[in-house]
Amino acid sequence: MDRERALKIVKEHLTEHRYIHTLGVMETALELADRFGADRHKAELAAIFHDYAKFRSKDEMREVVKQQGMPESLLHYGTELLHAPVGAFLVKQEAGIEDHEILEAIASHTTGRVGMGTLEKIIFLADYIEPGRKFPGVDQVRLLAEENLELACIQALKNTVGFLMKQNQLIYPETIYTYNSLLAEVKNKNVNGGI
Amino acid sequence: MDRERALKIVKEHLTEHRYIHTLGVMETALELADRFGADRHKAELAAIFHDYAKFRSKDEMREVVKQQGMPESLLHYGTELLHAPVGAFLVKQEAGIEDHEILEAIASHTTGRVGMGTLEKIIFLADYIEPGRKFPGVDQVRLLAEENLELACIQALKNTVGFLMKQNQLIYPETIYTYNSLLAEVKNKNVNGGI
Repeated sequence: MDRERALKIVKEHLTEHRYIHTLGVMETALELADRFGADRHKAELAAIFHDYAKFRSKDEMREVVKQQGMPESLLHYGTELLHAPVGAFLVKQEAGIEDHEILEAIASHTTGRVGMGTLEKIIFLADYIEPGRKFPGVDQVRLLAEENLELACIQALKNTVGFLMKQNQLIYPETIYTYNSLLAEVKNKNVNGGI
Repeated sequence: MDRERALKIVKEHLTEHRYIHTLGVMETALELADRFGADRHKAELAAIFHDYAKFRSKDEMREVVKQQGMPESLLHYGTELLHAPVGAFLVKQEAGIEDHEILEAIASHTTGRVGMGTLEKIIFLADYIEPGRKFPGVDQVRLLAEENLELACIQALKNTVGFLMKQNQLIYPETIYTYNSLLAEVKNKNVNGGI
């Protein structure tokens, strides 16, 4: 599927604000794909579709989680988590995207996943640092993303966990598992810059 | 077992620095037991024995974890975690403490545990706020501990997770499960002070 067709499909499902965010994620994902050696077309499609299910109703998303045998635990941590795995399912079903790497990157873009591949890391990170994002600490993550994909993802996860704790919000365990797994990955690679 | 005998047993297993810390935990645990309605004698004994295994060798602690069928995952997160569950086992075996609540409070004092009872929370918190502790943020936890046991434990967990992330250290998942469970507990109680 080419970029124009993908954008046309997605645009109907998003608010203008979220569509602009999606364009930012797409641009950033392409930069990261060039920098860290991922397939440009997959990065583009995964970015375009990453928030496909963002505005589906809570009931529809819960239904998909149950019917598709996704982890029940997803239902206990606030609906913000659901649009990523549900989106991957709907993108396959409704838009006909079959590529496993793309679907996986969509599915894990909010929480991360243990053992993320390069494309997954890129979409996770692009969603966090695209030019429209103004989180406290985002500039530090942008700087890390110039050099090291894993260290940038780790810092984004740290910021997210810190933010959730400050707000007294539950932390989805997968986010911590992902942090731990990236830390182990970086230490195994014996990367010393910043860790 | 009375306080003098317990202190005598423990003293042989600790450095002077750690013995002074233990006396601080004991005093704080007694205050918290009075404030939040726990058994004073159990609080005293759990506090005295909480670091009983602190200076056992890594090999001995790993052996106990394996032989006693404790979670294998304990072995993957740094040895600092081992002395609490291993301590509970050794305190039972070597000092003859049989009380389940005391042993549980010793076992969970480093990571916390989902569904902690009052005595467990008290030992977890006393270990964090005893007068000798100088962590950044400890005074805020001390203030919370004047009023609300759960909110104080939540803040201690937040500080600990923040500290570990800052140091690029792995986070033991039980710590996050405990944070989530205390948050749910506080929200269920509809306590609004500070949350």
